[in-house]
Amino acid sequence: MIRVGIIGSTGYAGAEIARLLTGHKEVEIKYLVSRSYAGQAYQDIFGNLFEIINKDCTDVSLKDMAGEVDVIFTATPQGYLQGELKADILDKCRIIDMSADYRIKDVETYEKWYGIKHNSPELLQEAVYGLTEINREAIKDTRLLANPGCFTTCSILTAYPLMKEHVIEKDSLVINALSGVSGAGRGAKVANLFCEVNETAKAYGVTTHRHTPEIEEQLSYAYGDSVTLQFTPHLVPMHRGILATETARLKGKYKYEDIKEIFDKYYGDEKFVRVLKKDVCPETRYTEGSNYVDVNFRIDDRTGNIILMGALDNLEKGAASQAVQNFNVMFGFSEEEGINMIPMIP
Amino acid sequence: MIRVGIIGSTGYAGAEIARLLTGHKEVEIKYLVSRSYAGQAYQDIFGNLFEIINKDCTDVSLKDMAGEVDVIFTATPQGYLQGELKADILDKCRIIDMSADYRIKDVETYEKWYGIKHNSPELLQEAVYGLTEINREAIKDTRLLANPGCFTTCSILTAYPLMKEHVIEKDSLVINALSGVSGAGRGAKVANLFCEVNETAKAYGVTTHRHTPEIEEQLSYAYGDSVTLQFTPHLVPMHRGILATETARLKGKYKYEDIKEIFDKYYGDEKFVRVLKKDVCPETRYTEGSNYVDVNFRIDDRTGNIILMGALDNLEKGAASQAVQNFNVMFGFSEEEGINMIPMIP
Amino acid sequence: MIRVGIIGSTGYAGAEIARLLTGHKEVEIKYLVSRSYAGQAYQDIFGNLFEIINKDCTDVSLKDMAGEVDVIFTATPQGYLQGELKADILDKCRIIDMSADYRIKDVETYEKWYGIKHNSPELLQEAVYGLTEINREAIKDTRLLANPGCFTTCSILTAYPLMKEHVIEKDSLVINALSGVSGAGRGAKVANLFCEVNETAKAYGVTTHRHTPEIEEQLSYAYGDSVTLQFTPHLVPMHRGILATETARLKGKYKYEDIKEIFDKYYGDEKFVRVLKKDVCPETRYTEGSNYVDVNFRIDDRTGNIILMGALDNLEKGAASQAVQNFNVMFGFSEEEGINMIPMIP
Amino acid sequence: MIRVGIIGSTGYAGAEIARLLTGHKEVEIKYLVSRSYAGQAYQDIFGNLFEIINKDCTDVSLKDMAGEVDVIFTATPQGYLQGELKADILDKCRIIDMSADYRIKDVETYEKWYGIKHNSPELLQEAVYGLTEINREAIKDTRLLANPGCFTTCSILTAYPLMKEHVIEKDSLVINALSGVSGAGRGAKVANLFCEVNETAKAYGVTTHRHTPEIEEQLSYAYGDSVTLQFTPHLVPMHRGILATETARLKGKYKYEDIKEIFDKYYGDEKFVRVLKKDVCPETRYTEGSNYVDVNFRIDDRTGNIILMGALDNLEKGAASQAVQNFNVMFGFSEEEGINMIPMIP
Repeated sequence: MIRVGIIGSTGYAGAEIARLLTGHKEVEIKYLVSRSYAGQAYQDIFGNLFEIINKDCTDVSLKDMAGEVDVIFTATPQGYLQGELKADILDKCRIIDMSADYRIKDVETYEKWYGIKHNSPELLQEAVYGLTEINREAIKDTRLLANPGCFTTCSILTAYPLMKEHVIEKDSLVINALSGVSGAGRGAKVANLFCEVNETAKAYGVTTHRHTPEIEEQLSYAYGDSVTLQFTPHLVPMHRGILATETARLKGKYKYEDIKEIFDKYYGDEKFVRVLKKDVCPETRYTEGSNYVDVNFRIDDRTGNIILMGALDNLEKGAASQAVQNFNVMFGFSEEEGINMIPMIP
Repeated sequence: MIRVGIIGSTGYAGAEIARLLTGHKEVEIKYLVSRSYAGQAYQDIFGNLFEIINKDCTDVSLKDMAGEVDVIFTATPQGYLQGELKADILDKCRIIDMSADYRIKDVETYEKWYGIKHNSPELLQEAVYGLTEINREAIKDTRLLANPGCFTTCSILTAYPLMKEHVIEKDSLVINALSGVSGAGRGAKVANLFCEVNETAKAYGVTTHRHTPEIEEQLSYAYGDSVTLQFTPHLVPMHRGILATETARLKGKYKYEDIKEIFDKYYGDEKFVRVLKKDVCPETRYTEGSNYVDVNFRIDDRTGNIILMGALDNLEKGAASQAVQNFNVMFGFSEEEGINMIPMIP
Repeated sequence: MIRVGIIGSTGYAGAEIARLLTGHKEVEIKYLVSRSYAGQAYQDIFGNLFEIINKDCTDVSLKDMAGEVDVIFTATPQGYLQGELKADILDKCRIIDMSADYRIKDVETYEKWYGIKHNSPELLQEAVYGLTEINREAIKDTRLLANPGCFTTCSILTAYPLMKEHVIEKDSLVINALSGVSGAGRGAKVANLFCEVNETAKAYGVTTHRHTPEIEEQLSYAYGDSVTLQFTPHLVPMHRGILATETARLKGKYKYEDIKEIFDKYYGDEKFVRVLKKDVCPETRYTEGSNYVDVNFRIDDRTGNIILMGALDNLEKGAASQAVQNFNVMFGFSEEEGINMIPMIP
Repeated sequence: MIRVGIIGSTGYAGAEIARLLTGHKEVEIKYLVSRSYAGQAYQDIFGNLFEIINKDCTDVSLKDMAGEVDVIFTATPQGYLQGELKADILDKCRIIDMSADYRIKDVETYEKWYGIKHNSPELLQEAVYGLTEINREAIKDTRLLANPGCFTTCSILTAYPLMKEHVIEKDSLVINALSGVSGAGRGAKVANLFCEVNETAKAYGVTTHRHTPEIEEQLSYAYGDSVTLQFTPHLVPMHRGILATETARLKGKYKYEDIKEIFDKYYGDEKFVRVLKKDVCPETRYTEGSNYVDVNFRIDDRTGNIILMGALDNLEKGAASQAVQNFNVMFGFSEEEGINMIPMIP
């Protein structure tokens, strides 16, 4: 059994990791870390887990926990991990980080977009970006896994094959993405009250959202050259879900079959990426509660554009279940173990 | 492998049975029956099952299917099964019926509340009412299982221990229940459009709801004498969930511990009925997507009443997962097989 | 023009009063008081009022404001007003209080249910309970109006005629009520986040909700004797709306027409109380955004009970628009002025 | 008093016109036309209007009604009006059409995008496109007003000033728009059930949505040359609201103040178009229930793009209240009469 600690276990992503790992055959959860709920029974905070997880929250440090577990999931605010982590901790246990602290290789880019200083830049090169379908090999051996963001997982996987194959103009991408409210976290803020976000929609972080450089960096690797794009996120009234609609200029004339073939080349063998049938638009509900990403596209001969579409569950493939997928790869388990959920409707 | 047919497989309950059985180790789904969708791929109707269920809908009769499967789930409108079923069909396969056709032993009561004639009253005595926790032994051997309604499962399990132990006045029960919209089915009706049921609440079927005699019959068995009660259902804007609030007059003075002991006597060993901690009110979300029923109570010394509360997922313990639970009992599998889901929030 | 100050103007009820008074012909809003938003433009907080209300929030005391306005609306937490108010303030201006501070005549009852000491009990007898349809005459001359709660307005108006006419057993009332989330206020609490209250339902405050003594007191006046009842509130995922379902034991045999006549006797001339047609159940959406209360009933000959139903908008007839209605009565304006909104669907 | 008939009065847009006109000082509603509800009381269909509109639905023809009213609002399916309308009807009364039948001047474009033949192309030139803020003068005298679509009103008003002033590359516009569910109408379709559209988001009509040529035509007039653009609509789970996010390539370097000045030039005197403060993103809730459109923009120096944003209520400025606004212009009333609603939150 792999011994696991979760820091930030009372946020939505942390709690989802705990729930998933409860059903994982090879895992023993040793620590559910939470400063604000320390000493409280986990099942008293999350009533869904009543009589299922019988453990109290504790407030134990990263350092102290490192010697007692095999892997730590950090579902913590930006800046926390890079402020605490040192190489000697990684000598004792592996880390799967849900924050952006080790996602961006260029420390200046990180510091500019996040507005905070990076305190362990020496670990950046060692970190592996955990988009499982793309970096599977590198993930196997890493000690420090940077789990991708929700908007980013969806945006990148949707555009990746066409970027990789140079089918679209590299700087033409306009990504409009919708997010469910759980992406905003479980903090007590007026802005996330039911009465403030229900029955309304808005864009936010326009031109400044921090997932922008993360998407650009990964798509630049895919393209083999620097990619600049426009990313505009929106908040819509649903619990879970990311929907990315990406408009790009095609470099030439393409038929449906041409593009379909490219998608199948990259995703045909990938269980968790589903390339939908012709003309079917992805819907977030069809991925809810699962590790699936649904992608599709539509060519507009009239405009010369292609519209790419991707949908996933921001707390699953966009956070917790992808983290478990990466965990499985890192520890040599079946990639599906513990995350083989079938999406549920309605 | 048990060979299964599902009639009415494109309604919400039927589709949930199909989804659950896909994850059941001992089941092979042979027929997904739907008149209106016959010939269409099931995964084209339910995008969540894309690349998961690879089977077309067919329109095969109950009779024809009986010889080719071991069990048929009927998720059909009231009156369908009692109009089709004959004893010779039950000689060939067992039936788990989601409708009310064989739930009520007294044919006159059925005909009065449902306003239709019963065409196979000779099978009523043979049918077993499938409230698993209460009728487990009888369920094992039945050929014809009448799976309980959603309001009824919740209402009965919440009141059962106190009725059984004669703690409350038998005719004092006032049940107010809330239901999510999926309980109204997947039919194309103006009344169930998003814009008609979102952001509103209403009572319906006041004094006439058909689950009333079903609850009364079962609680009468529990009490050992005829029980009359007031049942008022309400529709609230959520996908899933039944919340039953039941006010009853206590027969005497009781302390919290007295009542808790009674609940524990009946449910202490039941995995799927969770008696919550003191003063915790059940919330439907904590049961969503699972087979759990959460129950609790609160004594009001001021009024001499006790308020009983129960919550469950109407499509799971209120329909599909309880049907699979009964299936497991009927065929000798572990009762949890295929329905061991942990509720997911948010 | 009547000069108005609003204390607590950045909560949902306070903001609704401000919005309504903006459309009132006889009002000049002088002060929008808010401690936490002092100095900020009101339209920057409430984007719906952009270019409509051009005024900053200020933090001015009750005492200082009293000399400069004709009336103060206090949309403040329980205990605030009774801690600040003295008779000399009422010599200078009239007060319409949205809190419970002066709703309950018996100071012991107040202190017991609210758990706080009352600091100005000498003003309790002078205060008038502002259920407009019932206390219209007394409202005209009062200096201190206690505006009723949302659950209470709905619960009382629904039961009032039958209590008054002694048609139901006085202690048999079981009130189950549903509330939209705006009733929980605009404070930053985890419990009211979208992801915590959407897609779920629960009872709360079971046996202890503070609106209980308020309902009991008013219905006792109606009946002419002390009334005890069971009140159980629930939270459901919608912005606005109270739905009260009240089960009571009839004292004798009644026909539909008998009861209808009684309702018409009390509400036939009341514009804002609509007695619905036979068998129509009130829905909260049909009152949303308006000052209407919709009521109806259904007799159950089988059980001897009557089920009474009422619906209103908790922020309007349950708070702000009833406050303006009372304001109109107090200052001699047409009762409809500023609150003649037609409910909007969807 | 202007005598009014409404054809299609039981759809969401038709019912909203009826509701608004009930509060209009200069209007008498003579006919509420509905084939499917003929003979039923309007208040029995729309409970919000109980005791407010006392009139039955009738099934009277366009032709017969023409002689008896001054203006007819047609809230009918595409193709209805162009199939029925002749010049002699317009001699008798004026028409405000909510469908697309007379919005597009080029009959071939209409027939191609709508897939139906146009039966009265001779009336196309006479029809005036009713975007009030842009075509106010022409609207005054028209007999046939083509009221704009919801996506189109929002998309055009958001881009209009910059198109008109040639600030953006004319063919660079990528419009991603979100719509509430009421835009899909009140028809009984499985696709619009609560359980099918709640808690999910999707794109639809990708590359083929019929509002595309309407937006292109109007922006081409603004630019003075043919404009081609990419329009991708999405469905999100809310009742009302259109949010348009429009990404365009700037023709040169612009500062915030430059663009703000242009917006103010066109909308500074327009009551119903609100240019928000710097960096404030429009939210649909702040326009709900009103005739307002909220617009704003953000320049991205990094990409050379500008992101334009607009929000409105699809049933108001996107349908009913703009129709009444146009009615006011056509009949010489104050443009605000009957539509001076202040948006309501939450």
